[in-house]
Amino acid sequence: MSTTQPDWQLDSRLQDNTIPVFENGGLVILLMNDQRWPWLIVVPKVAGAEELHDLDPQIRAAVVDIAVSAGEKLKTFTNCDKINIAGIGNIVRQLHIHVIARHEGDANWPDPVWGYGKIEKYDPAQAAELIDQLKENLFDTPLS
Amino acid sequence: MSTTQPDWQLDSRLQDNTIPVFENGGLVILLMNDQRWPWLIVVPKVAGAEELHDLDPQIRAAVVDIAVSAGEKLKTFTNCDKINIAGIGNIVRQLHIHVIARHEGDANWPDPVWGYGKIEKYDPAQAAELIDQLKENLFDTPLS
Repeated sequence: MSTTQPDWQLDSRLQDNTIPVFENGGLVILLMNDQRWPWLIVVPKVAGAEELHDLDPQIRAAVVDIAVSAGEKLKTFTNCDKINIAGIGNIVRQLHIHVIARHEGDANWPDPVWGYGKIEKYDPAQAAELIDQLKENLFDTPLS
Repeated sequence: MSTTQPDWQLDSRLQDNTIPVFENGGLVILLMNDQRWPWLIVVPKVAGAEELHDLDPQIRAAVVDIAVSAGEKLKTFTNCDKINIAGIGNIVRQLHIHVIARHEGDANWPDPVWGYGKIEKYDPAQAAELIDQLKENLFDTPLS
């Protein structure tokens, strides 16, 4: 996971709707810029990958471990009721794993978040504070 | 994954809406009884597990590998456009991983399947034929 992937670049739709919170040579973790749910997106830097089964097994294991670990820490940090973890990608085909903290009664609960309503962006100060907290609570210690 | 889990039993809501297609000591794979989408559900036999991070890392790796492998084979078998793979569990908390074959233009495309419309059960002969095909195409060879 330490090799840089020169052929890979983040899909522009992911870039437009997210804020980066963590990056290493193998993947980037983004915060969805939607205050309705605490929502991370793990994107392996593997050009052309659309499905989890497109990844080399060792890379896949590392990506899944990091997504699961991020989910565990996000659950503690947000005190949420359930983590939703998913690779959907029907629209944006670049492989990306959603890790979302769901609280009973949140927007569209208990149905899923994708495709529901309109995005509600954080205001910049709120986003900056949350990013700081995520870095401190999720990403200051090794993820897996 | 070969140890039987005597304290585990399948959630009754999963049981009511699915047909078993594969089972070993560590997990069961079900077909969702909804002909709108080819839809498998992988359920590890671990009592009390709700999140992927609740599983022992080795068991989690085996469960994820089997779900990913089932998705790869399901994509080939159905010639679908995208696999959706997810642990949601907002309603049924027993840990279960969805593996769904999505075709462009299918019901609710490109939005997710969960919570959409009403279940459309297979007729029994159709279900039996599909189960046979799934066993032959997905589960006759090792899954991971």
